[in-house]
Amino acid sequence: MTMIKATNITWHEGHVSRAEREKLLNQKGALIWFTGLSGSGKSTIAYTVEHALVHRGHLCYVLDGDNIRHGLNKNLGFSAEDRKENIRRIGEVGKLLVDAGLITMTSFISPYRADRQTARDTVGKGDFLEVHCATPIEVCETRDPKGLYKKARAGELKGFTGIDDPYEAPEKPELLLDATNLSPQECAVRVIALLEGAGKIPALKE
Amino acid sequence: MTMIKATNITWHEGHVSRAEREKLLNQKGALIWFTGLSGSGKSTIAYTVEHALVHRGHLCYVLDGDNIRHGLNKNLGFSAEDRKENIRRIGEVGKLLVDAGLITMTSFISPYRADRQTARDTVGKGDFLEVHCATPIEVCETRDPKGLYKKARAGELKGFTGIDDPYEAPEKPELLLDATNLSPQECAVRVIALLEGAGKIPALKE
Repeated sequence: MTMIKATNITWHEGHVSRAEREKLLNQKGALIWFTGLSGSGKSTIAYTVEHALVHRGHLCYVLDGDNIRHGLNKNLGFSAEDRKENIRRIGEVGKLLVDAGLITMTSFISPYRADRQTARDTVGKGDFLEVHCATPIEVCETRDPKGLYKKARAGELKGFTGIDDPYEAPEKPELLLDATNLSPQECAVRVIALLEGAGKIPALKE
Repeated sequence: MTMIKATNITWHEGHVSRAEREKLLNQKGALIWFTGLSGSGKSTIAYTVEHALVHRGHLCYVLDGDNIRHGLNKNLGFSAEDRKENIRRIGEVGKLLVDAGLITMTSFISPYRADRQTARDTVGKGDFLEVHCATPIEVCETRDPKGLYKKARAGELKGFTGIDDPYEAPEKPELLLDATNLSPQECAVRVIALLEGAGKIPALKE
């Protein structure tokens, strides 16, 4: 016979609320949506923010091509329809992570304004913070960390954002960063200030 | 000019590891996959576990029809193909939540063995804990909390699991629960013991 030791446990009906999880984490759920050209600094800044926040005891998670395109969205290609569905699913997963209380960051080019608006509407006002990595294409192309611009210029990659596919810049992003003359650390400080200003994490006491 | 105050921040390269997040949370990521007939107790047990764990300071999240079918999977129906994709996406989202360090619970009938095996393979050995809510159909049908069995018997619902669609019971679930004579609390205690035994959360000190 199994002994049931239910002491020290409080039983409740219904769901645990987002507010209860946020209290446990000492933070409020948020989705920081990085958008910008390939090479504009999105992922580097996101990971820099992640390290700084975890160091401060906050729970973060980054969604990017590595964990999304090879997982949830591995059955999607790069047609217009599939790109749209790609961003839709990322917005929906972001919403779940925000509801779970996490400071969530997404790092995708996400070139189309309408798709980003869908994500914003899904996640909801106040929880969606759009960060435009507005590093000029000349700078991105000079950096070209993955050699993608070179391939696109050579015609080996078709539909490459900024070359033969448009990038629709955000009109009113919550934050605009140009990484031309800013280090990832300097950019991260601005993102963290955005989170503090939005009341998502407590400001550091001096 | 914006003052950059980067003191008290440690900068790192690359991703924050799952282990670092788990250390922060004092728990290890896990996916508890509840499977069983409609009315077998899946959701009630999951929410009871969630409350108990949050009370112990652990971060949990429940994926169920409410937050999945109306969000990420709202573009899926109930064809065989769509049911399979439904479970595939839930497994992939579960994997992300486990990587984020959360004790995650999924509450879906998930009637097909092959689909659950896909989810198990996706999430990975040691992180996937299958809980079969094996309450007999007679008991589920007597309870019928949503009136679905009545509709299915009347022919108003087609393809209803246990009536005119099969339920393939797990062969080796990590835990088997029959809620006929057990309260949700008694079931929850067993699920929590499973998590403790798997080293996912520390056992309560007496």
